[in-house]
Amino acid sequence: MTAPACCHINDVRAAAATIADHIVRTPLIAAPWSGGDLWLKAENLQPIGAFKIRGATNAIARLDPRARARGVVTHSSGNHGQAVAWAARWRGVPAVIVVPEGASAVKTAAIRQLGAEVVVVPAEDRAAAVDEFTARRRLTFVPPYDHLDVIAGQGTLALEVLDDLASIDTVLVPVGGGGLISGVGTVMSSLSPRTRVVGVESELAADARDSLVRGRRVSWDPALTSRTAADGTRATVVGELTFPIMRATVAEIVTVTEDEILAAVSALARRAHLVAEPSGALAVAAHLAGPSRYGRSVAVVSGGNIDPPVLARALCESMRKDHSLS
Amino acid sequence: MTAPACCHINDVRAAAATIADHIVRTPLIAAPWSGGDLWLKAENLQPIGAFKIRGATNAIARLDPRARARGVVTHSSGNHGQAVAWAARWRGVPAVIVVPEGASAVKTAAIRQLGAEVVVVPAEDRAAAVDEFTARRRLTFVPPYDHLDVIAGQGTLALEVLDDLASIDTVLVPVGGGGLISGVGTVMSSLSPRTRVVGVESELAADARDSLVRGRRVSWDPALTSRTAADGTRATVVGELTFPIMRATVAEIVTVTEDEILAAVSALARRAHLVAEPSGALAVAAHLAGPSRYGRSVAVVSGGNIDPPVLARALCESMRKDHSLS
Repeated sequence: MTAPACCHINDVRAAAATIADHIVRTPLIAAPWSGGDLWLKAENLQPIGAFKIRGATNAIARLDPRARARGVVTHSSGNHGQAVAWAARWRGVPAVIVVPEGASAVKTAAIRQLGAEVVVVPAEDRAAAVDEFTARRRLTFVPPYDHLDVIAGQGTLALEVLDDLASIDTVLVPVGGGGLISGVGTVMSSLSPRTRVVGVESELAADARDSLVRGRRVSWDPALTSRTAADGTRATVVGELTFPIMRATVAEIVTVTEDEILAAVSALARRAHLVAEPSGALAVAAHLAGPSRYGRSVAVVSGGNIDPPVLARALCESMRKDHSLS
Repeated sequence: MTAPACCHINDVRAAAATIADHIVRTPLIAAPWSGGDLWLKAENLQPIGAFKIRGATNAIARLDPRARARGVVTHSSGNHGQAVAWAARWRGVPAVIVVPEGASAVKTAAIRQLGAEVVVVPAEDRAAAVDEFTARRRLTFVPPYDHLDVIAGQGTLALEVLDDLASIDTVLVPVGGGGLISGVGTVMSSLSPRTRVVGVESELAADARDSLVRGRRVSWDPALTSRTAADGTRATVVGELTFPIMRATVAEIVTVTEDEILAAVSALARRAHLVAEPSGALAVAAHLAGPSRYGRSVAVVSGGNIDPPVLARALCESMRKDHSLS
């Protein structure tokens, strides 16, 4: 399998050079407690707490200077919104983040603290609001996943993984819109073609798995995908750009249950001393469900922005289960 | 100030070479959320979840081969016990860990899982039990802090800090028996003499502060020190070897309250996505209490082995305070 021309390993290498001084080179941490041969790529340790900072930083760095001076816009109340705000501040670029009514006040405040302008609109008007900002103020849209500079930026974490560990059988990657796994797939297919790239979704938001199985982009109703605690992966359909890259570079997509996700959140806190959000624990959840399937594995812990009560509940729930087992 | 001859920077450099392949080179993580110019040295990401692995690994590596073949012994139900068990397994060395009656079953089980022999004795018989093992089975005692190879091993984290960050005004270090801060002090006084090394203790276990102030080793009653949640720093008196090194290399020791410690545990989880135990959060607690005092600072997050209910409680408590403030 080779990566399609639309994202090339050299784009990822260039992105790595571009963003190197502005992100954390996250550690790869052995997880012998998992019962398998597992390593964790701790992207929750990035500034803003998620890998999204890589793609946003690369995309903004690659804008032409005049476009950059005008500014950028995106819609996201989550990690991508924070990532764009963070990367824009780094370059002194104006940023508008469109968030839906009802978005978490904590997350909206975090975006404002990063210096971005927050515009609140009804959820169904988000795309139109972005269009208006691109048309009227000539801001450049930085999409959350379906953009080659974003994909190349996310892929940089796979270069670091290959620098740190040899002979990897499997890389497990959470899948939402497919930006991260497309970047990882591009790198692995070029530099370590024997490594299987495996995507992980919640069984409540398995649109990417269905898309790969059927060979066409399948969307799930937001009323379905909104049920998963893994809110970072609720994208209802993979991207137009990411889908062909995924078809070329991803071996399979597996699903995990909500209980498995929260158990992985708890295990990461208790055993690895890492705080992961539910989306960020997907890959670890898949590995814990069947360590022998994957051989020598890397799981991307993609983010750590969990609501404290959700973390507290996951910890207490896992304690309760330990006691009922003993 | 120069380090006394009893621990030399070259010993620390040699220790770094010895242990490099067996520990995690932990990341130094920016913490702009702290309100100051703070970086975190994330030693909670070590295998066994604490910096103690550095000293134990160095001490066991430096044993002569015949002593190593006979094995090692120590007394600790905490991070040092796990560190010795872990390092012994790495070298294929028999290890006996003496733990007091009533020690946490979880921690005792963790030591056994690492392959060490666990011997349970009444708390007051621990030292005698170690003496018996060194006499009868000719095991070598690996002390938790008062040993030059242990101090040199702990100091290796300061070499990594200096590789990662220039122009540090202050390094904040949790203090129990003084092994870690003696290693850090040795490195800083030699390679970055303008950096102030500041120790941090709970106000409920401030024996090291009293010792530095009075110029002699002052012990606190265990009935007092046992009150702090920072159980990794309950040593009731600093070491005979560590005290002169501390006098020569430590600028001051500050204290924090129990509330400040738990607030730091919560902040680390929520903002840095790191799970720290109370002892591991001491340095961050000191910084949060007065960021402007310390300038460009590094706080050592020394360990992450917290009981899940304590973490859950710290998270919920900080949420409650946020709400009552708003």
